[in-house]
Amino acid sequence: MKSQDRLHRIRHRLHEIIFEADTRAGKWFDLILILSILSSVLVVMLDSVATIKVSYGPLLYGIEWGFTLLFTLEYLLRLFCVTKPLRYAFSFLGLVDLLAVLPTYVSLVLPGSQYMLVIRILRVLRVFRVLKLASYVGEATILIRALLASRRKVVIFLLTIVTLVVIFGSLMYLIEGKKNGFTSIPRSIYWAIVTMTTVGYGDISPKTNLGQGLASVIMILGYAIIAVPTGIVTAELSHATRKKISTQACPACMAHGHDPDAVFCKFCSERLNPSSNK
Amino acid sequence: MKSQDRLHRIRHRLHEIIFEADTRAGKWFDLILILSILSSVLVVMLDSVATIKVSYGPLLYGIEWGFTLLFTLEYLLRLFCVTKPLRYAFSFLGLVDLLAVLPTYVSLVLPGSQYMLVIRILRVLRVFRVLKLASYVGEATILIRALLASRRKVVIFLLTIVTLVVIFGSLMYLIEGKKNGFTSIPRSIYWAIVTMTTVGYGDISPKTNLGQGLASVIMILGYAIIAVPTGIVTAELSHATRKKISTQACPACMAHGHDPDAVFCKFCSERLNPSSNK
Amino acid sequence: MKSQDRLHRIRHRLHEIIFEADTRAGKWFDLILILSILSSVLVVMLDSVATIKVSYGPLLYGIEWGFTLLFTLEYLLRLFCVTKPLRYAFSFLGLVDLLAVLPTYVSLVLPGSQYMLVIRILRVLRVFRVLKLASYVGEATILIRALLASRRKVVIFLLTIVTLVVIFGSLMYLIEGKKNGFTSIPRSIYWAIVTMTTVGYGDISPKTNLGQGLASVIMILGYAIIAVPTGIVTAELSHATRKKISTQACPACMAHGHDPDAVFCKFCSERLNPSSNK
Amino acid sequence: MKSQDRLHRIRHRLHEIIFEADTRAGKWFDLILILSILSSVLVVMLDSVATIKVSYGPLLYGIEWGFTLLFTLEYLLRLFCVTKPLRYAFSFLGLVDLLAVLPTYVSLVLPGSQYMLVIRILRVLRVFRVLKLASYVGEATILIRALLASRRKVVIFLLTIVTLVVIFGSLMYLIEGKKNGFTSIPRSIYWAIVTMTTVGYGDISPKTNLGQGLASVIMILGYAIIAVPTGIVTAELSHATRKKISTQACPACMAHGHDPDAVFCKFCSERLNPSSNK
Repeated sequence: MKSQDRLHRIRHRLHEIIFEADTRAGKWFDLILILSILSSVLVVMLDSVATIKVSYGPLLYGIEWGFTLLFTLEYLLRLFCVTKPLRYAFSFLGLVDLLAVLPTYVSLVLPGSQYMLVIRILRVLRVFRVLKLASYVGEATILIRALLASRRKVVIFLLTIVTLVVIFGSLMYLIEGKKNGFTSIPRSIYWAIVTMTTVGYGDISPKTNLGQGLASVIMILGYAIIAVPTGIVTAELSHATRKKISTQACPACMAHGHDPDAVFCKFCSERLNPSSNK
Repeated sequence: MKSQDRLHRIRHRLHEIIFEADTRAGKWFDLILILSILSSVLVVMLDSVATIKVSYGPLLYGIEWGFTLLFTLEYLLRLFCVTKPLRYAFSFLGLVDLLAVLPTYVSLVLPGSQYMLVIRILRVLRVFRVLKLASYVGEATILIRALLASRRKVVIFLLTIVTLVVIFGSLMYLIEGKKNGFTSIPRSIYWAIVTMTTVGYGDISPKTNLGQGLASVIMILGYAIIAVPTGIVTAELSHATRKKISTQACPACMAHGHDPDAVFCKFCSERLNPSSNK
Repeated sequence: MKSQDRLHRIRHRLHEIIFEADTRAGKWFDLILILSILSSVLVVMLDSVATIKVSYGPLLYGIEWGFTLLFTLEYLLRLFCVTKPLRYAFSFLGLVDLLAVLPTYVSLVLPGSQYMLVIRILRVLRVFRVLKLASYVGEATILIRALLASRRKVVIFLLTIVTLVVIFGSLMYLIEGKKNGFTSIPRSIYWAIVTMTTVGYGDISPKTNLGQGLASVIMILGYAIIAVPTGIVTAELSHATRKKISTQACPACMAHGHDPDAVFCKFCSERLNPSSNK
Repeated sequence: MKSQDRLHRIRHRLHEIIFEADTRAGKWFDLILILSILSSVLVVMLDSVATIKVSYGPLLYGIEWGFTLLFTLEYLLRLFCVTKPLRYAFSFLGLVDLLAVLPTYVSLVLPGSQYMLVIRILRVLRVFRVLKLASYVGEATILIRALLASRRKVVIFLLTIVTLVVIFGSLMYLIEGKKNGFTSIPRSIYWAIVTMTTVGYGDISPKTNLGQGLASVIMILGYAIIAVPTGIVTAELSHATRKKISTQACPACMAHGHDPDAVFCKFCSERLNPSSNK
């Protein structure tokens, strides 16, 4: 009984440190964790630079293993102190935590394979955990909600872009042809995306008069069409900002959604309590 | 009498399946149609890749004919089950349906001609039919209405862009000249469009000091001027979003700006007249 | 007396045709004028294409002289039928009309000189006269007013851009140096403008690690900073759109600027006349 | 006593001239100062152009020293006439004033060193002082306040961009590899920034099919994601503009939303309380 109670206390304390950020220990844990994540990402990056790998290869390999063991321990502790381990393990952040350690172990079984690196860089996703940190979450929620609210409009916009890009890409393939770098319709569509998004690498560019004319149309279209997603998100965001102000609930019929300047409930005519943050 | 009645029933049933999406069969038909359209577009694309055409040319040719016959049958069925066939045939979607099958037949009469391909890719327009699908049409209507409402402002904006581009292009032709790639005024205007829309291929770029100075002016202008279409569309879109909400006036205090779901005036508690367009 | 009266009538009739667009003749005159302007601009453009000049040089030269004589006649008629010729001659449109014919005559005195071409292309400015055409002027006025209202904010924005571009350009000159194409501070500033406005030609691009790092900062800055002019113009435009609705004047104190939903004058409490377009 | 009084008067007069712009002398001082700053920046720029340095090197060196001595004198006078010299010396503008003269003196001790130039160009920061000039400060304050208010959203946005760029850069390193210019993860991240911000130099560009496909996704993402900072700043700016306008409530019918210049309620004709912040 006593030892179980002690285990419970340890578990609770660990949860406070690892998952929460209200106590002093919790804040320090979060800070160290973020620094570790950033350092480990930096090590992966440096490891990819040829000149650095030649000189410091084994050192970087060691540090990488150090971080992997550290994050493995952290992952196990998280599983231990959580009340529903399975629910955590299959949550988005839980999966990211697991994927952040797996690649190093997998690279043991299949040593030196280039392919392994593909999974390894998923460790970079840890950076997202930094967002758990602060009151920034509230503002992030507003942004995400505004983007979700404009979801359908964005899908329509993307479908329009895809259609335009397919048609213009195919036309350019016919106009410019293989000799000017437009070797196939997929490659021409790639060019159309490069042009319409105003990126403009210049690795492929129209040479004929007709091609340059059509390219001009695509550019002006791409230049003007960016107004659409901007307009959608802006309208949604200023709506969200406006909506944020209203909070009161009617004391009689409990209805929500009153304007901040409302004096009477618009559903039952009951006088509203003067809100404190008015 | 009986056979005519039967024909009528078949026609009605077909219309339900092909044109509507409320029944189970109608939904399946729409889904299969969209997948077929996307597949056929993919086949046209793959057919343009040299390495793939060498190996799978005949196969792709076969699939292409298969899709063409399928879409031809679909087109004939649409004509059959519609009450006013001519009206459908000359509607926008009807013409697209026809143009989606014609090129393959035309390529029989004029075999192997490069020119034929120009019409063939119009088949890609079928992707637009995907938009018929869902409740997305409502949101699309809002977007299109906002764009139509800002039509005149957009025309003025485009005229300004064209004028600027013609003047700047001509100036650059005089400043840079033929030796720096600005071989003619039309080509210089093409460069001005590439620059002002911030695409910037780099296939033509100013070399002289004066030319680089003028190019800097064009770039900053193009960078700042994009605010204009964005502003137009955003103002129109937030107007459209706002319009959806408020109309009624209080019969007692005449106050406006009530929410569409308001029953009582929020300023004086008077009962509001039930609005007609609620 | 009679001949003077006749002259007056002719003058009035000409003014109606040339300056106004209400009569049938006036509309035809405007249409033909715009087509002539566009054609003459096209001729100047074609004249600059080397291959076309070789074959059709003399023809284009003749057409150019034809248009010049036509526009000269038009300019003289405008001077004749206007009541205050000097005021027209020194107005913006009057100066453009003059500059549209001068270069061809000047090219007679100084034949074949490349320099002359600089003035010649100012003829392109005639395109602006097209804007005189329609009810589009009203919408253009809204746009221009919104831009003028945000004048100061735009100046501050441009000053910030210039400062950033000078500092970043100088830093890149020191980091990259002459061997990587950053041959002088002005050229490095040109590169900074190309980068910050997201044009990105690629004729000059950073090669060192430090340079690519700083370039990344400039790019993200330029990418995010475009939000500022867009925000300015959008806020001003939606303000202008809102303002547009108010038109009534108080019958008692003549004050303007009432909201469209106002029932009483907000300055003197007089009841406002119900507006017709409410 | 008398001499101290005279010193005080001189000090006061100098403060009026140097720090304020209300008197005639103060305005002239500001104007000359700004012209001197711009000229000195121009001299530094010209000094970096190889062809100019060869011919006018000594002259530019002399002018540079002239400006340095002038600005040193100005800096000492500012220290002299301010009541709290230390507070000025450590303010942002005070530090900029000091850094604007230091590099030339330091270049004496360490002659001809390339490294010195790094600090020298900080003199360019003087351009910022131009902003002290006019009523533009008010508008600048609105802009800065709007940007500060959207600070957190901008940080979230930048974090998202950084994360995306790290992940996409790493993926491209694996897909394209060293042979196509993606020599390391940091360089691939640089490419991802160049692409996502729609700059698109073209110095590095994907060659494989998979790489071009992923690049297309990054481009469309970067093209659409720019809507987010724009939406944030616009929503904040129109909020700031709106706030300036309305506050009072009618004492009779409690209606809000009156214009700041309203004397009577526009809904019920009641006289409004004169607002305090009018």
